[in-house]
Amino acid sequence: MSELRIVPLGGLGEVGKNMMCIEYGRDIIVIDVGIMFPEFDMLGIDYILPDWGYLRDKKDLVRAVLITHGHEDHIGGLSHFLEEFSVPVYATRLTRGLIEVKLRQASLLSDTTLHTYAPGDVITIGPFTIEPFHVCHSIPDAVGLGITTPAGLVVHSGDFKFDHTPVDGWPTDYAKLAEFSGRGVMVLLSDSTYSERPGTTLSEATLNQAFDSVMREAPGRVIVATFASLISRIQQVVDVAAQHDRKIAIAGRTMAENTKMASKLGYLHIPEGQLMSLDEIEKLPDRRIVIMATGTQGEPTAVLSRLAVGQHRSLSIKQGDTVVLSSHTIPGNEEMTHRVINRLIQKGANVFYDPLAPVHVSGHASQEEQKLLINLLQPQYFVPIHGELRHLKQHGRLAEELGISREDIAVVENGHILTFDDQMEILDRVPGGYVFVDGISVGETGPAVMREREGLAQSGFVVVILRYSRSSGKPVGHPVIVTRGFVFLPESEELMAQAEDVILAAATVRAGMSSKDIEEEVQSALFGFFRRETKRRPIVIPTVIEV
Amino acid sequence: MSELRIVPLGGLGEVGKNMMCIEYGRDIIVIDVGIMFPEFDMLGIDYILPDWGYLRDKKDLVRAVLITHGHEDHIGGLSHFLEEFSVPVYATRLTRGLIEVKLRQASLLSDTTLHTYAPGDVITIGPFTIEPFHVCHSIPDAVGLGITTPAGLVVHSGDFKFDHTPVDGWPTDYAKLAEFSGRGVMVLLSDSTYSERPGTTLSEATLNQAFDSVMREAPGRVIVATFASLISRIQQVVDVAAQHDRKIAIAGRTMAENTKMASKLGYLHIPEGQLMSLDEIEKLPDRRIVIMATGTQGEPTAVLSRLAVGQHRSLSIKQGDTVVLSSHTIPGNEEMTHRVINRLIQKGANVFYDPLAPVHVSGHASQEEQKLLINLLQPQYFVPIHGELRHLKQHGRLAEELGISREDIAVVENGHILTFDDQMEILDRVPGGYVFVDGISVGETGPAVMREREGLAQSGFVVVILRYSRSSGKPVGHPVIVTRGFVFLPESEELMAQAEDVILAAATVRAGMSSKDIEEEVQSALFGFFRRETKRRPIVIPTVIEV
Repeated sequence: MSELRIVPLGGLGEVGKNMMCIEYGRDIIVIDVGIMFPEFDMLGIDYILPDWGYLRDKKDLVRAVLITHGHEDHIGGLSHFLEEFSVPVYATRLTRGLIEVKLRQASLLSDTTLHTYAPGDVITIGPFTIEPFHVCHSIPDAVGLGITTPAGLVVHSGDFKFDHTPVDGWPTDYAKLAEFSGRGVMVLLSDSTYSERPGTTLSEATLNQAFDSVMREAPGRVIVATFASLISRIQQVVDVAAQHDRKIAIAGRTMAENTKMASKLGYLHIPEGQLMSLDEIEKLPDRRIVIMATGTQGEPTAVLSRLAVGQHRSLSIKQGDTVVLSSHTIPGNEEMTHRVINRLIQKGANVFYDPLAPVHVSGHASQEEQKLLINLLQPQYFVPIHGELRHLKQHGRLAEELGISREDIAVVENGHILTFDDQMEILDRVPGGYVFVDGISVGETGPAVMREREGLAQSGFVVVILRYSRSSGKPVGHPVIVTRGFVFLPESEELMAQAEDVILAAATVRAGMSSKDIEEEVQSALFGFFRRETKRRPIVIPTVIEV
Repeated sequence: MSELRIVPLGGLGEVGKNMMCIEYGRDIIVIDVGIMFPEFDMLGIDYILPDWGYLRDKKDLVRAVLITHGHEDHIGGLSHFLEEFSVPVYATRLTRGLIEVKLRQASLLSDTTLHTYAPGDVITIGPFTIEPFHVCHSIPDAVGLGITTPAGLVVHSGDFKFDHTPVDGWPTDYAKLAEFSGRGVMVLLSDSTYSERPGTTLSEATLNQAFDSVMREAPGRVIVATFASLISRIQQVVDVAAQHDRKIAIAGRTMAENTKMASKLGYLHIPEGQLMSLDEIEKLPDRRIVIMATGTQGEPTAVLSRLAVGQHRSLSIKQGDTVVLSSHTIPGNEEMTHRVINRLIQKGANVFYDPLAPVHVSGHASQEEQKLLINLLQPQYFVPIHGELRHLKQHGRLAEELGISREDIAVVENGHILTFDDQMEILDRVPGGYVFVDGISVGETGPAVMREREGLAQSGFVVVILRYSRSSGKPVGHPVIVTRGFVFLPESEELMAQAEDVILAAATVRAGMSSKDIEEEVQSALFGFFRRETKRRPIVIPTVIEV
C-alpha cells in the first residue's frame, strides 16, 4: 500500500479530538491519545476512551505517539494506550511534565520512552518528517504539527488560536506557517471547535483590564476560579494581584501542583513572597487577599462548589467577597454552574462571570482566525477536525467560501479512513466506537448495563423473594419485598400491603408450576399493579425459592 | 393586619415565576400557578409544583387566581391547585382555551369558575382593583397586571418584551403604562429572565427575512421546528411559505391542537387550502413542502428527535431537506439538542439554528427594555422577579443605575414575605420549598428516594438472598444473587463466583447470630469486595431467610 491514510478515531462527539492516525505503507504515527467525559445519559461512567481497534491488527506498524498539548482530551488516554502499545511518546517540555505525573500514577513511567520535542525541531520517524510549530492555546507549550509524507505535506493545527498578545508573549508561528505554504500543503487538518462563532477570539491581554478593575473595586477578598491547567490565567491573576498589593493563595490540589510544576519548568513566574499558603494568607487584611481555585463547572467536590454550599475545610464565603469565574461553561454543565453562582450570591458574594463581565477568553480560533489559517496555508485538501459534526460542517462551509472546492473538503466522522493517492478519497467507516471506563473496567459497561441504570434512575427496583411449594402450588409464608428508589417507604405501607396481596394471588396458580413460570406471573402482575397505582415503572424482579 | 404583602412562592429556580400571592387584610389573590421542569439530578421526577403551604392556613382568604399567559410555567399547576382551592380563575381568551384543555383532562372543568378578562377591563376583587394590560411575549394574548391596593398601585409585568413590530401587530401597551405612571406606581414586579443580556431583544419581524431566504434557497422540503405554543412563529412560517408557493403540514399532536384552537379563536390566520395533512402534503413536489414540528429541545419522543434517529412513523429525512430550529435551547438541554442537530446533518439535512442563522428571537425583554419599563413606570419600590437569583441581582443593579436607591430594591428568593406599610420590609422566609410530582404522587418523592436513585444510576444494585440456620450458625445452600446496572453479567462470571465465596465466608460467623447481624456482616464484606475489585459502589442489600 503506497497511499497515505488519515484516520480520526473514537466514536463519540468531537472528531479526531482524542486521537488521529497517520499511516503510510508499514508505518503509523498517532497524534494525541485523550479521553472524553461522559454525556448526561452515560450513567456511572468515569470517562471514555477512543476505540483503537483499528490499530490492534497493525500493532507492529505503530511507531510513535505525538502529543500536541497537555489537556486531558489529548493526553488522558495515554496510560491505557501504552499498556497495549509500547511506543515512544513525543511531547513539549510542559506537556511532558503533565504526562509524567499520569504515567507515574499508572506505574508506567519507567517502561515508557519519552522524548521532548520543541518548535523548530525536525524529527524523522519512518517515512514521516515531523516539524512541531508553536500555537497559542489555553495551556502553554502547545504545538501544531507539520508532517511531510511521501504523498505530500500534512499540517495538523492542534487546538489553536491566533493571539497577537498572549500572556507568554509567544504568538502562533506565522513564519513557519508561511514557510509550509511556500512548500505546498497537501492537506490541512484544522480545529473546528469555534466554527459557529463569527469574528476573532479576544486576546488574553484583554483580561488584564477586567482583572484590574475587579481587584481595584473589590472591597474585600477576591476569589478567582478557573481551569487547573490554565497557567496563563494564573500568571495574569498573579501579575494583577501584585499591582494591587494583594497576595495569592491556591486552593485545590491539582491547581497547586500545576502551579508548582509550571513554576519549576519556567512557564509561570511568581515573584518571591507573592504566593502564600491558605493558612498564612488568612492573617492578612481582606483587601490584600486573592485566592485561586477550581470548580468553574460546578463539580460538587471542587473548591468553588464547596464554598457555595459552605462545606470547605478552611474557607467560607462572607459578605464583601468578590468571586470571579474566569471560564466558560462546558455544554452540559450549565445547571450545575448556575447553582454555584446563585448560592455564592445567596451567601453575600459579588460574582463576576461571562457574559456579565469580560473575565474569560477562549483558547480556540473563531471564524476569522480559521479562515486566516486556511488562507495562510492554501492547502489542496481541507479536513475540519476537533468538533462535532455541526462544527465540521460549518468549518467546511467557511473553507468553501475561501474557494476550496466542495470535493476537496472532507467532513467525516470518527472511524472514516481518508486516503490520499492521486486524490483524496473517503473510505467506509472502520468498525468500532467508543469505550467506556467504569471503575477499573474498560469496555465492559455497555448499552445493556446503561439501560438498566437508566431504568433504575427513573423509578428504582422491587425485588420479591417468595417461598413456594411446587407440590401444593402455593406460596409459603409472606413474601419479602426489597425496594430502593421506587417509593418513600414510610409513606407507602398501604401500597406495599396491597402489593403483597397481588404477589400471593399471582403465585397461587396451580400445582406443579415451575419457579420460572411463577416468577413470570408475579412479575407481570406486580409491575402492572405498580404502574396503575403509581404511574411509575420500577424494575420488578421476583425470585421464587422452592421449599 | 392592614399592610400589603407580596409573596413569591415555590422554592426552586426562578423567583415568583410559577406563583405569586398578593395579600391585604383578609383577602389574597394569586398570580399564575405554573410548574417547573426537573433539573439534571432530579431523577424520575415528572415536574415540580410550587409549595403553596403558606396558603393552606389561609384557605378562606384566597379569592381568585389571575393568569398572565398560557405557558406551562404559568398555568401547568392549576389542576393541582384547584383540587385544594375552589376559587375562580381569570384569563384572557387564548389562555382560557389552553386552561380548559388542562382542566378537562383533570375532570375539573365543570367544577371551576373561569372568567375571561381582557386588556382594558377593570375587575374588583375584595380590596383589589385589577387592570390587565397587553404585553408582547412568545405566546399571544399575554398580559401584565396593574393592581390597585389600599397601600398603593402594584404593577406586575408578566413575561414581557417591547416589540414595535410583533407578528400580531399588537405592541406592549405603552399608553397604559404611562397612565399607571401618572397615577404613581408604588411597586414594580418585573421579568428578569434576560437581565444578563445587553441591548434590546430583536423584533419578531426580523425573522421574516431569515425564513424568506431559507425557503427561497432550500432545494427541497423545509422542516421548521419550534415550541408548540409559539403561535406567532407558526403564523410567520405560514405567511412566508405562502409567498413561496409552499404548503404546510403540522407534525405533532400538541402543535396541531394548538394550531386548531388558535385558528378557531382568531389568533392564527391560515389561508384556505394552505394547511394540509402529512399524507396529503407528501404528494406534492419537495419544493412545495413545509412541515412544522416540535422537538427543538431534543426530547426523545418529539417529532424532530424521531426524524433524527429515523424512527418517525411516516416521515424520514433525506438528502436535500432543510431543517430550521426556530428556538433557543433551554439550559440543561444542550447535549440533547446538539445530538439531534448532528444526526440530522448525518442524514443529509442542511440545518439552520441559532447562532448559525437568525432564526429565533426571544419573548423576554433584554436590559434596555427592562430599563425602559422601569423608567416608564418610575416605581417607588422595585422587585425583580422571574429569574434565578443571579438574574434578579443583575436586574437590581440595572434599577440602581437608573436611580432607584438600593434599599428600595428587594432581591429576594421564593418564600420571602415583602410587606408594604409605611415602607417596604423583607420578612423571614416562610417554611416550605418545592413539591415533586412523580407519577401520580405529589410530594412523596423526596431527598431520600432521590439519593437512592442517584446511587442506583451510578452503579446499580446487588440483592443477596441467603438461607441460614441460626442453630448451626451456617448458611444453607447457595446464595441467590440478583443484580442490575452493576456489571455486564455475561462477562462477570468469575466476579460473581468470588462474590459467592465472600458471602458464604461472611455468613459463617458463629451459631446463634441473628439474621440482622448476618445481613450486616454480608453487606459490609460484599460491598468492600466489589469496591476493591471494580472500583464501583453498588447498593448491596443482603436478605437472610432463616430455615
